[in-house]
Amino acid sequence: MSSDRFEFLKKDFVQGFPAFCGFEVIKADYGIFETCLNVRDEHRQQDGFVHAGVIATMADHTSGYASYTTVSEKFRILTVEFKINYFKPATGLLIICRSKVINNGRKIKVAESEIFSVSDGIEKPVSKGMFTQIAVASEDLRIKPVFREAI
Amino acid sequence: MSSDRFEFLKKDFVQGFPAFCGFEVIKADYGIFETCLNVRDEHRQQDGFVHAGVIATMADHTSGYASYTTVSEKFRILTVEFKINYFKPATGLLIICRSKVINNGRKIKVAESEIFSVSDGIEKPVSKGMFTQIAVASEDLRIKPVFREAI
Amino acid sequence: MSSDRFEFLKKDFVQGFPAFCGFEVIKADYGIFETCLNVRDEHRQQDGFVHAGVIATMADHTSGYASYTTVSEKFRILTVEFKINYFKPATGLLIICRSKVINNGRKIKVAESEIFSVSDGIEKPVSKGMFTQIAVASEDLRIKPVFREAI
Amino acid sequence: MSSDRFEFLKKDFVQGFPAFCGFEVIKADYGIFETCLNVRDEHRQQDGFVHAGVIATMADHTSGYASYTTVSEKFRILTVEFKINYFKPATGLLIICRSKVINNGRKIKVAESEIFSVSDGIEKPVSKGMFTQIAVASEDLRIKPVFREAI
Repeated sequence: MSSDRFEFLKKDFVQGFPAFCGFEVIKADYGIFETCLNVRDEHRQQDGFVHAGVIATMADHTSGYASYTTVSEKFRILTVEFKINYFKPATGLLIICRSKVINNGRKIKVAESEIFSVSDGIEKPVSKGMFTQIAVASEDLRIKPVFREAI
Repeated sequence: MSSDRFEFLKKDFVQGFPAFCGFEVIKADYGIFETCLNVRDEHRQQDGFVHAGVIATMADHTSGYASYTTVSEKFRILTVEFKINYFKPATGLLIICRSKVINNGRKIKVAESEIFSVSDGIEKPVSKGMFTQIAVASEDLRIKPVFREAI
Repeated sequence: MSSDRFEFLKKDFVQGFPAFCGFEVIKADYGIFETCLNVRDEHRQQDGFVHAGVIATMADHTSGYASYTTVSEKFRILTVEFKINYFKPATGLLIICRSKVINNGRKIKVAESEIFSVSDGIEKPVSKGMFTQIAVASEDLRIKPVFREAI
Repeated sequence: MSSDRFEFLKKDFVQGFPAFCGFEVIKADYGIFETCLNVRDEHRQQDGFVHAGVIATMADHTSGYASYTTVSEKFRILTVEFKINYFKPATGLLIICRSKVINNGRKIKVAESEIFSVSDGIEKPVSKGMFTQIAVASEDLRIKPVFREAI
């Protein structure tokens, strides 16, 4: 991947809800995407653990961009469905998500995300999900997103 | 459900990440929970639709509280896993989530969430998910959440 | 639905693995399919319950035909993915599966199946699943199934 | 794993529905299980592909035994739920399933299964699933399975 393309993806990844959550891109390659999150209080649930929704959002968005590296610029990726398991509560101050495409269909993509909670430099797997996505021609997406105009 | 209990749940629901996202409680009953979200730009993804992660978070959290209405105060609900389907992009300015427990096991609960995007007063189903949760005795949850102390 | 169409579906449903398993069609309508199974020893797992795989197969196949009622004769339905929850072991001698399409997209269909174990005439819900399917033009399916020639 | 234990698992695996389907054990180790199936006409669906239900059953049962290798003889494994994706139709005459435990909780296990269709000696991945299981004390399983008495 060219460094121009990487810089584009790094910026494109962090818009709207992912920007609001504070996800950052670590690494990208063909069919691969890796991101991180510095955990703040607003990421937690009522018992103090990182909220299942934060982890699901990170896993979904990162896997979507893993698939996005496999299509031409004429296509966008939408989530059809996903399933995610939570192994144990995430209690670290750093969360890392590693995604990869496991079935690279032309139209239907399947990707996986593994999520790790990091404490004292030690990564502990806390979650894993499987994502079904669809590649849609950009011109078929019907609404003009207001917030993109500011980018 | 007593109005005291409803007031407690209404407040308890909106902590940490769900507060940050802006979810609000509409209704609660035994095995049932209903919430809404006024969509802002920070809830969107790169194409302007409500982010799959916002919907997943809302569906997860609302279903968790549907199950929470079925246990005594000694128990907390944690998500074991979930699966969610996205039917069409959510483009409305109001999102509604309706959850219900569909298998009320003593320890393992299964709940469903249906999500609707509302435009011009018309509800359109945009997503549905199925959630497996576990009821854990409060005293078995090991970390003392800092942010709860402020409540 | 015409009785001719119902007779066709009733026969078409019971081929290959579903015939081997012994599933039978009870009812069909637009977007709806209902089937049953008389449980024999070969349907059980090592602890004597109806095997999760029997229930998954029945739930998948019945939901596939629920979607099949919504497309023209030029299309076939293939399973993209599914998720299924097991509420309690199925111990009855009769299993009933009721499926319905919950999002009737032109190409991508989402259907649900509910499975009931029947003992002494009482239906007990034992499982529920959500299925993502794709409608594929018959002419795009590439292999000529040998066993169909006998029908 | 001792060869005695392997011989026990090899036999224990093939009972009831899995015996009826024709699955065979190739390999077993702590947290790992591998099985195969020689495809016959009764394993197919209406278009001639191996039925999604055959693959789901094999993936479920093999992952259940992967988890079964991690518990003492006092426990049995039951499926709580699973999700499975189908990448492409399985057309080979041999199917291989490889399962491993990915989160080995004391009570809740999560395992994965990868399924391959083999043609001309070449393995093609056709499916992958994620399984949530629960370890239950044998004495808590309430029915006495008739068919086990013959073993």
